Amino acid sequence: MAVYTEISDDELQAFVARYDIGQVVGCKGIAEGIENSNYLLQTAKGPYILTLYERRVNPDDLPFFLGLMEHLSRTGVKCPVPVPDRGGQSLQTLCGRPAAIVSFLQGMWPRKIAPWHCAELGKAMAQMHLASMSYDIKRDNALSLTGWQQLYERVGNAAEDVETGLHAAIGRELETLARDWPKLRPEAALPAGVIHADLFPDNVFFLNDACSGLIDFYFACTDFLAYDVAICLNAWCFEPNGDFNITKANRLLSSYQSVRPLNAQEKAALPLLARGAAMRFLLTRLFDWVNTPPGALVKPKDPREYLHKLNFHRGVQSIAAYGLA
Amino acid sequence: MAVYTEISDDELQAFVARYDIGQVVGCKGIAEGIENSNYLLQTAKGPYILTLYERRVNPDDLPFFLGLMEHLSRTGVKCPVPVPDRGGQSLQTLCGRPAAIVSFLQGMWPRKIAPWHCAELGKAMAQMHLASMSYDIKRDNALSLTGWQQLYERVGNAAEDVETGLHAAIGRELETLARDWPKLRPEAALPAGVIHADLFPDNVFFLNDACSGLIDFYFACTDFLAYDVAICLNAWCFEPNGDFNITKANRLLSSYQSVRPLNAQEKAALPLLARGAAMRFLLTRLFDWVNTPPGALVKPKDPREYLHKLNFHRGVQSIAAYGLA
Repeated sequence: MAVYTEISDDELQAFVARYDIGQVVGCKGIAEGIENSNYLLQTAKGPYILTLYERRVNPDDLPFFLGLMEHLSRTGVKCPVPVPDRGGQSLQTLCGRPAAIVSFLQGMWPRKIAPWHCAELGKAMAQMHLASMSYDIKRDNALSLTGWQQLYERVGNAAEDVETGLHAAIGRELETLARDWPKLRPEAALPAGVIHADLFPDNVFFLNDACSGLIDFYFACTDFLAYDVAICLNAWCFEPNGDFNITKANRLLSSYQSVRPLNAQEKAALPLLARGAAMRFLLTRLFDWVNTPPGALVKPKDPREYLHKLNFHRGVQSIAAYGLA
Repeated sequence: MAVYTEISDDELQAFVARYDIGQVVGCKGIAEGIENSNYLLQTAKGPYILTLYERRVNPDDLPFFLGLMEHLSRTGVKCPVPVPDRGGQSLQTLCGRPAAIVSFLQGMWPRKIAPWHCAELGKAMAQMHLASMSYDIKRDNALSLTGWQQLYERVGNAAEDVETGLHAAIGRELETLARDWPKLRPEAALPAGVIHADLFPDNVFFLNDACSGLIDFYFACTDFLAYDVAICLNAWCFEPNGDFNITKANRLLSSYQSVRPLNAQEKAALPLLARGAAMRFLLTRLFDWVNTPPGALVKPKDPREYLHKLNFHRGVQSIAAYGLA
C-alpha cells in the first residue's frame, strides 16, 4: 500500500478548481506504489492521476521529473503528462506536500511476464533513451557507486541477520565494482543520458498486446543508457523460482537493438552493469529489510532475491549468456 | 488497505469480455475498505468498480446483497448497481473468489463531518428504509444480541488488556441489553426492514453539497429501522475529541423524520438502540484489537472510542439528549 495522505473534500475541490479539467466526481487512493500517495481522480472530463509526493522524494528534483515527462511526451514517448493549472503551473502544493496532476495512462502492468512483454519493453525503453538524450537537465544517480557504499555502511553488520557472511560478501563485491565501474564522462565509450532507473513490471503498462507506456519517473537520473537495460535484465528476465530466462533476455535485448543498437563497449560492459544493478536493489532492499519495524504497513521485499541475481551475473562471461550472439 | 488479490491481466481480459462494458483500459486496486478487494476498472465506456469478495463475506449472502442494490436502485435510491454479464448474471467468480462489477457511484466521502452532512445522511437513510421495506428477502443480523454474546465470550479476559474492568463492564451491559432489547416480530411496535447496518462516513458519498449515494451494503440485514439511525448517531455525531454534537444529531434525526417520521416507540427506544449500536462496534473492534498480530497490514481501530460512546448513551434519559423535543 501507498503511504496515504487523507485529502479533505474541501481541499480537493479548491485544488481542482485551479485547473481546467472539469468538476471532480470521484477521488480514490490507489493501493500501488510505496514512494508517494496516488489517487485516481475522476472528473467530468475523464480520469487523471493525482500524486502527493511523500518524504522519500526530494522536492528539488520534482521540476526535473515533471519536465522529463513533458519532454518525453512531446517527443512521442507514451507516458503520463503533467497537467498544468490555468496559470501554466504543474507543480503544486496540496495538504502541505508537493503535488501534481498527470494524465491517465491507459493499460495495465503485467503480473506474469511473457517473452513478448520483454520485446515490447525493449522497444519502449530504447525509444525513451533516444528521446531522453535531448533532455538537457541533468540529475546525478544517487543510487550508484557512492550511494551503494553509503547504504552498505548504514546497514553494517545487520546484513548478517539476513545471511551469514553477507556483510563481507557485499564488501568484496563493492570493491570490484568500484575498481571496474565505467566512468561517467562526456567522452566515455558508453553513451549516457537520462535513464528511467526503475523499469520494473509495475511501471510498464500494456494494452492490446502492446506496451502502452511507462510510468513513475521518480528515480530517473543521468547515467549509462545500458545501465537501464541491465536493470531490466534483473527485473524482467528471472523466473519466480530464480532461473534466468535467456529467451526473455534475448527478446529484450534484440528488440532494444532494433531501435537503438548497443555498441561494442556497451555489450562488453553489460555483465558488469547487471552486477551493479543487482547490487543497487540488493542494498536498498537490505536497508529496508533491516530498518522496517515489525508492525509497519509496508512489508519489505526479501533482499536475497537480488543476492541470487548478483551471483548469477558474477558468473556471466559475455553477453552470450543473455541470449545475444 | 484492502485485502488485495492480484488479478492477472489475462484473467481480467477474459472476465470483462463476458460483459457488454467495452474494453478494459485500466484496473487499479483501491486503498479503501478492509473487507473486500476493490478495483477501479476503467473501460472504454467509463469507470466501474470490480469487487472480489474475500473471506469475511459469506458467499451465500451475496445474492441478498446484490439483489438489494438492484432493488434499491430500481426504487430510486442512489447506490452502486450490479452490472450483469451478457447472460444476465451479476455474481461471478474471478481468481477463485466470488466477484461482481458494479456501477461507479460519483462522489466522495466526507473526511470532516459538518451538520449539513448529517442532514443529507438522514434524508438518504430514510429514503433507503422506505425502499428496503419492499425488498422481500430476509437476512438475520449476525451482529445483534447473539453475535455480541459470542464475540464477548471469544474475546474473554483479553478485554482486560485494553482496560481494567472492561470484561465485567461489558458483561453487565450485555445482561441489560438482553433483558431490554425489543423483540424482532412482525407485530412489533418498532418497524423493521432491511437496514444498511454500517452507514459510517466512508460509505456515504457527497457531491455538490448533497448526498450522491450510499455504498457498501455488505452488512445489510433485517432489523429495526431505528437501529440504523442509532448506528448513525454513533458514527456521525461524536467529535474526534469524544464530545457528542447535539446539533449534528438534531439535523440527522429531524431530516430523517422529514422523510420517514419515527413513531413514539422508536423515539423511546432510541437511547437503548444507541447503546446496542455502540456495543456492536465496541465488540467487533475489541475482537479485532486482541486478534490482530503485531505485524498485520491493517491497523485495528481503538475499541475505547466505542466504550466512551456506550457510556454516553447509558446516561441518556430521552431523545431530548439527541436534540429532538
